[in-house]
Amino acid sequence: MKRKKILITNDDGVFAPGIRFLIDIAKEFGDIVVVAPDKPQSGTGHAITFADPLRIKCIEESENYVEYSCSGTPVDCVKMAEYIAFKDHLPDLLVSGVNHGSNASINIIYSGTMAAVIEAHIDNIPSIGFSMNSYSHKTDLEPARPFIRKIIKDILEKGMPADICLNVNIPHAEQINGIRISRQAKASWKESFDNRIDPRGGHYYWLTGHFHVEDQGEGTDIKALADGYIAVVPIQIDLTAHGAMKSLKFLED
Amino acid sequence: MKRKKILITNDDGVFAPGIRFLIDIAKEFGDIVVVAPDKPQSGTGHAITFADPLRIKCIEESENYVEYSCSGTPVDCVKMAEYIAFKDHLPDLLVSGVNHGSNASINIIYSGTMAAVIEAHIDNIPSIGFSMNSYSHKTDLEPARPFIRKIIKDILEKGMPADICLNVNIPHAEQINGIRISRQAKASWKESFDNRIDPRGGHYYWLTGHFHVEDQGEGTDIKALADGYIAVVPIQIDLTAHGAMKSLKFLED
Repeated sequence: MKRKKILITNDDGVFAPGIRFLIDIAKEFGDIVVVAPDKPQSGTGHAITFADPLRIKCIEESENYVEYSCSGTPVDCVKMAEYIAFKDHLPDLLVSGVNHGSNASINIIYSGTMAAVIEAHIDNIPSIGFSMNSYSHKTDLEPARPFIRKIIKDILEKGMPADICLNVNIPHAEQINGIRISRQAKASWKESFDNRIDPRGGHYYWLTGHFHVEDQGEGTDIKALADGYIAVVPIQIDLTAHGAMKSLKFLED
Repeated sequence: MKRKKILITNDDGVFAPGIRFLIDIAKEFGDIVVVAPDKPQSGTGHAITFADPLRIKCIEESENYVEYSCSGTPVDCVKMAEYIAFKDHLPDLLVSGVNHGSNASINIIYSGTMAAVIEAHIDNIPSIGFSMNSYSHKTDLEPARPFIRKIIKDILEKGMPADICLNVNIPHAEQINGIRISRQAKASWKESFDNRIDPRGGHYYWLTGHFHVEDQGEGTDIKALADGYIAVVPIQIDLTAHGAMKSLKFLED
């Protein structure tokens, strides 16, 4: 296989173990450009920065490798990478992650990792987000290595199916049972706030919450993770509920 | 019709003309709770704040009306509103906007206005986002009044169809021709950056770009706006490309 051009980013920041692990795997397949946030950006969703300037800094450069940190969000990183490193032609692949924490189910909506994937997909770059179902930066990622390697290799060789990008979630387990193509489980965060008093007597609030899965059906990403499988969900960016268009006709009268 | 409980937010900030206009229309139909950002939050996407505390301030309170500003993102505002004002039961409707700028087509992905709508929808609140196809805060919103009123009234009376929320975009025109149920047009932002030098000799970058519509097909939100119609797109939050699941089976081998 001809060496490819691969763009790598994440939302935990350029120094997080997850992106170092992903860089290490991806190096086998191509020339690498890393543009990742200079600080953690979890929960930034698809935020972009247009009211403030962005800064970018080259951290490392060698023959087949260049790495930058960027002051912006994961989506800013993708846009910046296209501008500084891929003006003439787009990369063959973007990989984002490995995120420290699950982006299965509804978490995709809040995820900076997956926002970068979706941004690259909008710009017609084949793109994959990888997330580990554990928030700890000390979690051993090695059991996932052969599977991440296989997914990258297969997609580079066989191509990404049309009009999708991939949300890949990895179970936190010593032994992984395999890969399951899955659908996004229906779930939500049940939030609350800690109401606290600051030293000057003012109220402030910390967001807290727990994840609630309503969807006990078959074939979900959450079920795959629970069974010890890697969940691969094909993601589309057309949010139109085509099947519901008829049911809204009353608004046209 | 029994008076309803209506939650209102936006991403341009609590003092933007668009939200004042929306409040004025919605007051007819119910008791109002406003929780909106204390500063502009355009382009924040579905960002949430969990690494910093949030502050909230009551600006106005009367018998059927209460208004708060919140230091967080539009999604934070929805979560905060549920916590402080709707602990016992959820509002009958969330309306977000009127945004100063289009959220048609791919803009929904970047939009704080629509992120608030999607957040409310995740929590099973019927929800509608309204956006005006003009960035100017001086744009006359009056031509849209009867249409916004009708959409709110119809949805409160007839109910929101299952599993969707609404993305409503309004043409910038003195005369609006009507309402069209539409699909999300395929488009992208072609970005670039202004590369500038600060007074200390450092490089910084400003994001710029133009909107490029690839989709010349029928029935899109962009086409409806161009024809002088209000575009109503039913939005779903299951991002799974169900039709593409089979084409990925090779990853399971």
